[in-house]
Amino acid sequence: MSIFTKIISGEIPSYKIAEDDEFIAFLDINPNTKGHTLCVPKKEVDKIFDLDKDLYNRLMDFSYDVAKAIEKAIPCKRIGMSVVGLEVPHVHVHLIPLHDMDDIRFQRKTSLTPQEFETTAKQIAANL
Amino acid sequence: MSIFTKIISGEIPSYKIAEDDEFIAFLDINPNTKGHTLCVPKKEVDKIFDLDKDLYNRLMDFSYDVAKAIEKAIPCKRIGMSVVGLEVPHVHVHLIPLHDMDDIRFQRKTSLTPQEFETTAKQIAANL
Repeated sequence: MSIFTKIISGEIPSYKIAEDDEFIAFLDINPNTKGHTLCVPKKEVDKIFDLDKDLYNRLMDFSYDVAKAIEKAIPCKRIGMSVVGLEVPHVHVHLIPLHDMDDIRFQRKTSLTPQEFETTAKQIAANL
Repeated sequence: MSIFTKIISGEIPSYKIAEDDEFIAFLDINPNTKGHTLCVPKKEVDKIFDLDKDLYNRLMDFSYDVAKAIEKAIPCKRIGMSVVGLEVPHVHVHLIPLHDMDDIRFQRKTSLTPQEFETTAKQIAANL
């Protein structure tokens, strides 16, 4: 069972932003930048292009709405999107507020306090 | 006029993989890895989340088909997807055959000869 499935079931807590029958969005706990969010299908599939096309399209549609909300809540140049998946074998779309190229490289990380995570999640959710 | 609009018009040559009324896919000329492809809407818009949602969804649908073709043509662990846009102000979805995390960081680049670009584009297109 993936760590994301445990987040979906509530076994592991998360700073949740949005949820519907098929998808969940929550803050990345080791963010590149403040507001870095993961959009995850509840169905546990490893590779994004192994999702059937309809589910993939709905995930992308869900991610668009979350990205627009992040963009309204978090000052940045733009929202970047990245799907890698070499570390956690459960599809996740990274939505990352970008200030420069390093923000999408997954090398430079940002520390937030629990209170900052909480506030950030609420600010984004309020824009959905 | 963006460099991608010049590619779409044919003013600048490219190693083309797919094209329809709204979108084009061609090889990135400075690839992270062999098979690194860009999917671009013909409408010149800077930021992906400024595309209207229908056009964005069709771009993602188009990118899915191209990704599946790359995956069939190019040996790799999986296809990664990245949208950054800090350098060329015209929406482009990077589809990148991944072997490790560095392949999605846009730092380590691969050199291909014109002949290798040509062959790679044909191999991917043949799987569409």
